[in-house]
Amino acid sequence: MRDFSSDHRFLSINTATVRKQGDFVAIVEACARHGIRAVSPWRDQVAHVGLDRAVKAVRDAGLDLSGYCRGGMFTADAAHRQQARDDNRRAVDEAKALSAPCLVLVVGGLPQYSRPGSAPSRDLAAAQAMVEEEIAALLDYAKSANMPLAVEPLHPMYAADRACVNSTRQALDICDRIDPAGSGVIGVAIDTYHVWWDFELFDQIRRAGRKRLLAFHVCDWLVPTRDLLLDRGMMGDGVIDLPKARATVEAEGFGGYVEVEIFSEDWWARPMDEVLATCIERFRTVV
Amino acid sequence: MRDFSSDHRFLSINTATVRKQGDFVAIVEACARHGIRAVSPWRDQVAHVGLDRAVKAVRDAGLDLSGYCRGGMFTADAAHRQQARDDNRRAVDEAKALSAPCLVLVVGGLPQYSRPGSAPSRDLAAAQAMVEEEIAALLDYAKSANMPLAVEPLHPMYAADRACVNSTRQALDICDRIDPAGSGVIGVAIDTYHVWWDFELFDQIRRAGRKRLLAFHVCDWLVPTRDLLLDRGMMGDGVIDLPKARATVEAEGFGGYVEVEIFSEDWWARPMDEVLATCIERFRTVV
Repeated sequence: MRDFSSDHRFLSINTATVRKQGDFVAIVEACARHGIRAVSPWRDQVAHVGLDRAVKAVRDAGLDLSGYCRGGMFTADAAHRQQARDDNRRAVDEAKALSAPCLVLVVGGLPQYSRPGSAPSRDLAAAQAMVEEEIAALLDYAKSANMPLAVEPLHPMYAADRACVNSTRQALDICDRIDPAGSGVIGVAIDTYHVWWDFELFDQIRRAGRKRLLAFHVCDWLVPTRDLLLDRGMMGDGVIDLPKARATVEAEGFGGYVEVEIFSEDWWARPMDEVLATCIERFRTVV
Repeated sequence: MRDFSSDHRFLSINTATVRKQGDFVAIVEACARHGIRAVSPWRDQVAHVGLDRAVKAVRDAGLDLSGYCRGGMFTADAAHRQQARDDNRRAVDEAKALSAPCLVLVVGGLPQYSRPGSAPSRDLAAAQAMVEEEIAALLDYAKSANMPLAVEPLHPMYAADRACVNSTRQALDICDRIDPAGSGVIGVAIDTYHVWWDFELFDQIRRAGRKRLLAFHVCDWLVPTRDLLLDRGMMGDGVIDLPKARATVEAEGFGGYVEVEIFSEDWWARPMDEVLATCIERFRTVV
């Protein structure tokens, strides 16, 4: 297990963590100022400044990417399916332009939430089948762009509206069916917030192995959690055993950036420099 | 699959559903007035009126029980473990006095939340191991009282503070290790709210089979869900495919009461008769 106590060279900041404090260019500049070597951008934040300007900002700051957030929202009714496909191909293109190591996929829940306007459905199994079919279709395009796809299982409390893939087992089952050879073009993004509760997590990380472990995200689960979406915790403020999770992915050979992704009204209300300094301090002490 | 459209003979009301509107005796009387044949009491509501009075109220009203809520909260540090054990034996005794068909177990999360005052821990695997050990110990006592234990997997958003058993697979793994013969003394309580998101739910219900299916609870998942604890939905107001879940448990031979358990500030604010009438109407139309 890597020693993070003396530097933060393996820290990446997911730009959602400070999305309210500045635009994408400001975030990139602040990260560079704090000696942070990598970011993981969200598409809407990139779109806000324009893709070309985002690419230039990252290049000028000398930053790496640890991922690109996000493709997905595959579930749609027939009238919205092509829109979803086109949107996902653009996400691959953007990830490529930004030299991201992978495109993270938040797969979508029921179609009426993933692609608003779609006919309402309660058929979660149908949504899951559609997700798999659409990932398989996108993979051909992603392969031609040499852009790995990272399926991110989301916490089950998001099953209806954000992602109907909710455990590492489920995500790996999909990967194994789509890519039985384990070529590395498709894998998983492990976000501790989404999967920490799972009694099978460590077994499934071992099952994934190095080729399927494309991204590793950290934040913390607060007790109480006051909001399903915007009350994630800073590492160390909650109950997740982060070192154990990191040790397990690293035992499989994961040597990439550890990405901090926190959606929190509390942390969004603080100055960007304070948030980044706290991320660095916690990264060195509790991750 | 049973036809519920013309009567509500298989409806049971979990007393938490109307806990703010009246005490246990008032709830029992209201259920009888609405032709509801069964209830599932919570321990604190029984304690409030006294066990003897609760037993008499149920008997006088001619009601069945569909379960007794709840034993569990097994996770504790050494200083609180005996308290947890004694408490669970009392729960078995109360269930017996009330002629409940099973004692529902909410197993507890991390010890500092399950048994306040316990030393804080982030070791979820240790909590899970303790749960299994304590269920096995309680089972001997429960057998002597002829009281089946129903392990209830709770939604993963409660893993830290309420239950570290969060999927039907996990609950059945525990049952199979403790009772490999499948004697029926231990099984699961399937609450649609907690497990609807699980891609393996239907396979695991089939794995459970009749002997392990001790209770079946319904309510609904609302989008958005505004509170992790107190924003459960009335059947039909959310996204859960309740008929599919019921069809699956009934295909395994489950023929017991279908229990409505709703924790909701919204429904607690309405008159008891309105809530019960709505439960009956939805039971006949959407369950």
